[in-house]
Amino acid sequence: MTGTFITFEGPDGAGKTSVLQALIPRLKAQSQVALNLTREPGGAKISEKIRDVILDPANTEMDARTEALLYAASRRQHLVEVIKPALAQGDIVICDRFVDSSVAYQGGGRQIGTQAVLQMNQFATAGLEPDLTIYLDVPVQVGLDRIAAHQHERQYDRLDQESLAFHERVHSAYMKLVADNPMRIVTVDATQPLGSVVTAAEAAITKRFPSLFG
Amino acid sequence: MTGTFITFEGPDGAGKTSVLQALIPRLKAQSQVALNLTREPGGAKISEKIRDVILDPANTEMDARTEALLYAASRRQHLVEVIKPALAQGDIVICDRFVDSSVAYQGGGRQIGTQAVLQMNQFATAGLEPDLTIYLDVPVQVGLDRIAAHQHERQYDRLDQESLAFHERVHSAYMKLVADNPMRIVTVDATQPLGSVVTAAEAAITKRFPSLFG
Repeated sequence: MTGTFITFEGPDGAGKTSVLQALIPRLKAQSQVALNLTREPGGAKISEKIRDVILDPANTEMDARTEALLYAASRRQHLVEVIKPALAQGDIVICDRFVDSSVAYQGGGRQIGTQAVLQMNQFATAGLEPDLTIYLDVPVQVGLDRIAAHQHERQYDRLDQESLAFHERVHSAYMKLVADNPMRIVTVDATQPLGSVVTAAEAAITKRFPSLFG
Repeated sequence: MTGTFITFEGPDGAGKTSVLQALIPRLKAQSQVALNLTREPGGAKISEKIRDVILDPANTEMDARTEALLYAASRRQHLVEVIKPALAQGDIVICDRFVDSSVAYQGGGRQIGTQAVLQMNQFATAGLEPDLTIYLDVPVQVGLDRIAAHQHERQYDRLDQESLAFHERVHSAYMKLVADNPMRIVTVDATQPLGSVVTAAEAAITKRFPSLFG
């Protein structure tokens, strides 16, 4: 793999979508190589079929481990069909959520265990890790208040139905990931105004890969 | 878990279906508790939806690890919805294929690695192992000749399209599982006439659990 793999992470309401929307054109303007933004299922047909099963609100009897395995299956196919081919030709790939999200949401939030979910996802990725992860951090209540304010703009799915305790566990798991991966994960304070968050994320990326930008 | 969990395994053409068809009524006649035969997806609605994705012949671009994760997801849901409730009420559950099949077919056949597939499946089962596994053994060519002779009776799927080398690897992986699990797995020579295979399987089960039969 000659390309550069960057992921964005954060709890619900951290503003990932808005940050990426503003950030990607700015990165593209400076990038020396092709830069692709993607997110699972990312157009991989099989991944999309798997997502339909996960997100179907009718599947309320879905076990937490089943759900984690389905996310990993969708991730694997997206990795093989979308991410790896781009990395193989030297591109920068920015992915909106990756393994850390499963560790936080399924491992922490749904209490399957962060180590178990991480290990199972290493089967899915065959060990491929992001070169850099930008973690947008907001306190749980701030994130939930933002979601509530924008409820009408968002697609309602099963994850949004979860309790405050669930979101607290997700946040704690992210904090643990940050502590365990000081080289890979850079935390950006996402309570700042959007412009400041975008600038901080941009600086973190361009500073880490100086030969790719500018 | 107070019940008894028995699995049947074997390469294609070992005759599992015919053996189970003859064996189950004989076991039921002697059993002191309820006895259930099941196989994945086994009526678990989510498992069935997952199987539709796996077995769709249109999904030819499916990665081997994606497939293994989907089998594990289907297995997990079947375990939670069908097997565990029966075991919890003290039943005997006989399952036609379980984790060993994934180790043999995905780990060995598709060359993902038997240890990696086993470990990932332990996430799916949360460590639940069969109390006894009956492995119906036939040489690869015998099994494939049997399948060819009965092709018109079988549903055609993606696995049947595999090469001889694939089936050789599946068989080798089963041999390794048998060697690694001498207490759990009992091998029955499935080249014998059907009646002899059924009698041997029946004896292996009733001998292992004398208090449940007779």
